[in-house]
Amino acid sequence: MKTDLNTLMQEKNLDALIILGDAEHNPPMYYQTGGGHISAATLIQKVGQPPVLYCNDMEREEAARTGLEVVLYSKYSFHELVKKAHGDMTLFGALRLQLILNDHGLSEGRLGIYGVIDLGFGFGMLSHLQELMPGITLVGEASQDSVIFKAMETKDEAEVERIRKMGKVTTEVVGLVKDFLTSREVDGEENLLEEDGSLLTIGSVKARINLWLAERGVENPEGTIFAIGRDAGVPHSVGRPEDKVCLGKTIIFDIFPCEAGGGYFFDFTRTWCLGYAAPEAQALYDQVIGAYDLVLENMEANVPFKTYQKLVCDYFEECGHQTPITDEAPKEGYVHSLGHGVGINVHERPFSGIYTTDDHMIRPGVVVTLEPGLYYPDKGMGARVEDTFWVRPDGQMELLGSFPYDLVLDMKKWKK
Amino acid sequence: MKTDLNTLMQEKNLDALIILGDAEHNPPMYYQTGGGHISAATLIQKVGQPPVLYCNDMEREEAARTGLEVVLYSKYSFHELVKKAHGDMTLFGALRLQLILNDHGLSEGRLGIYGVIDLGFGFGMLSHLQELMPGITLVGEASQDSVIFKAMETKDEAEVERIRKMGKVTTEVVGLVKDFLTSREVDGEENLLEEDGSLLTIGSVKARINLWLAERGVENPEGTIFAIGRDAGVPHSVGRPEDKVCLGKTIIFDIFPCEAGGGYFFDFTRTWCLGYAAPEAQALYDQVIGAYDLVLENMEANVPFKTYQKLVCDYFEECGHQTPITDEAPKEGYVHSLGHGVGINVHERPFSGIYTTDDHMIRPGVVVTLEPGLYYPDKGMGARVEDTFWVRPDGQMELLGSFPYDLVLDMKKWKK
Repeated sequence: MKTDLNTLMQEKNLDALIILGDAEHNPPMYYQTGGGHISAATLIQKVGQPPVLYCNDMEREEAARTGLEVVLYSKYSFHELVKKAHGDMTLFGALRLQLILNDHGLSEGRLGIYGVIDLGFGFGMLSHLQELMPGITLVGEASQDSVIFKAMETKDEAEVERIRKMGKVTTEVVGLVKDFLTSREVDGEENLLEEDGSLLTIGSVKARINLWLAERGVENPEGTIFAIGRDAGVPHSVGRPEDKVCLGKTIIFDIFPCEAGGGYFFDFTRTWCLGYAAPEAQALYDQVIGAYDLVLENMEANVPFKTYQKLVCDYFEECGHQTPITDEAPKEGYVHSLGHGVGINVHERPFSGIYTTDDHMIRPGVVVTLEPGLYYPDKGMGARVEDTFWVRPDGQMELLGSFPYDLVLDMKKWKK
Repeated sequence: MKTDLNTLMQEKNLDALIILGDAEHNPPMYYQTGGGHISAATLIQKVGQPPVLYCNDMEREEAARTGLEVVLYSKYSFHELVKKAHGDMTLFGALRLQLILNDHGLSEGRLGIYGVIDLGFGFGMLSHLQELMPGITLVGEASQDSVIFKAMETKDEAEVERIRKMGKVTTEVVGLVKDFLTSREVDGEENLLEEDGSLLTIGSVKARINLWLAERGVENPEGTIFAIGRDAGVPHSVGRPEDKVCLGKTIIFDIFPCEAGGGYFFDFTRTWCLGYAAPEAQALYDQVIGAYDLVLENMEANVPFKTYQKLVCDYFEECGHQTPITDEAPKEGYVHSLGHGVGINVHERPFSGIYTTDDHMIRPGVVVTLEPGLYYPDKGMGARVEDTFWVRPDGQMELLGSFPYDLVLDMKKWKK
């Protein structure tokens, strides 16, 4: 939680954080500002002190709404600094940041660097800054191991309420997609049809998903996976827009929208077969549900997340599938890890891969997905089920956003 | 244009480009891949050679659709590299990138760094890489001065056609907003009303804008400015969702959607007064239109963009306004620059600020906005008009997306 940030900074001997970039679609800056139309900002947070936000004068009103102390960049002469930098904007950025740091008494110490920005500019600027200020040490942490991502890992009730609302929107839209698909007419080749009798495509389904999400005021910055048949057998294949939607094949529908402006995400997957399922697909799906139930039965707070990844691998191997334990990058079978944290990032701490460290833990406060899956692209099928849970302060798992688990969706206007 | 990239690399003595990050919402990677659901990828492009894309195995099918040569990360043992890095993921990233570079014979030379990614990870990884490979020089260019952004600066017909389509969508939606606003009932205090008789808010107008954009399959990642009264007087104030929409006040409506997945943008602004305008607002608006017309009359290909910024500053100063020539960061009057390039970035080269270099030029192939504006927050008003133009190969300016310039929009159910 945000209140952990100070302790985390002290543990890493950081004297201050420097967060760079826009307030939106930039998780560290969003976390500390709450978002807003603020671009190319700089946030300085000294250990034990509240953050101070630097921004362009034009965005002063948006910045004021963050509730943070705001300083305008015009405090430092743009013209003089550009001249001093001979027009090199990476040097300009370093010179201005040097003035800002000096104003905070940060001419020495360990400074952590954060924010999603253009790496060419960021690397060039920080290289200059390091030369300009030999007394400082710039610390670039891998995002998932960084103090900010560690603070983000556990959520308070207010954050979870925002994720719950996203779960409600998500499952509403999933319900609309289900109703839409099952109400379609079907042609002689078992393809679904649009109202006008033309073939229904994945692109058309996705356009509706985007519309239904937009109607609810949320964003879909990472897209949606709606993959059928062979594509359902490749976990991150998003589905080809021109592909037809037909009966009987496995459809993996993985949807992960976020609040407008790059806020909190939700993450949810169901596997569907329209009208009927092949026995082999049903058997595959039943094993996925078996893994899901096994994890839920065994899950406890304060256990490393990868414990359950191993549990699922063992179970799937008994069923005869490849897993990441036997093959580092299996092309079929169980090819990914069990789940991940969800927050301002669609994927964040804790992670569940078998090589993660023990501190990726199902600790109270985390919001995590559970998403076992099995994939056989050459057999034209795949299955995954994914739900998002909050581990409450009392250690109980709370399901955020529920939806039935039926593999086969009956078609209203078609019978086998 | 993309075909300029090789020459640009040679001019900067770059032996190769390294682009990092996702394929979408990451302009350099989108430019070279065409987008797709590909995350945390690495693209290596040696001078004079086609790019090679490295990605996670799970995303191999999405990567294959880029048409580029694809190598899967599983070529390099994740487990062994993580072990060698003692779990430090910035070191892991550097070790893997070292193997990739060695496979391209890049154990020495000047390597340009690009991509929008987490700076903590990027800086940490590149710092390790520099230590691991003392023979290489990593070059971090300021994004707008980088070889990739310079290549992006001029567009071919296929790119412009995509921007034209975005212009069509944008002006269609602007037309829908105009129709919606002018069809409203008005209460005794000149506030616009929803169908159900409640007060119409900016948040409600914006929700409709998002919906109408989504219906057309486009994204709105940077939001929309719809600012009324005092907020219209602060150029980047996006408008408060809870604010009422009322007659007579200036409304600045600046809309900048992009193709789904972070593709090409459009950028467009109109200023409206519903029902009637105060004489002072009309006079302000007429001066903005005066500046716009003045630029269009004088604009020629192969002239530095800032020439026209100076022209507008001179004109506005004659009208008695502050400008960036007299005050580096004026709080009222003409407080920004004339325009900017538009492409995969909503703001890109060429720029028009008075301190830009002469190579920010209205050269054939650029797509630029012209957007003079005047702002008086303390008088509760602002005015800006913005259109997007392509400078065709023959040097002629082509308006992409047209819409009338009326300040006052007549209300269908209300008369003064």
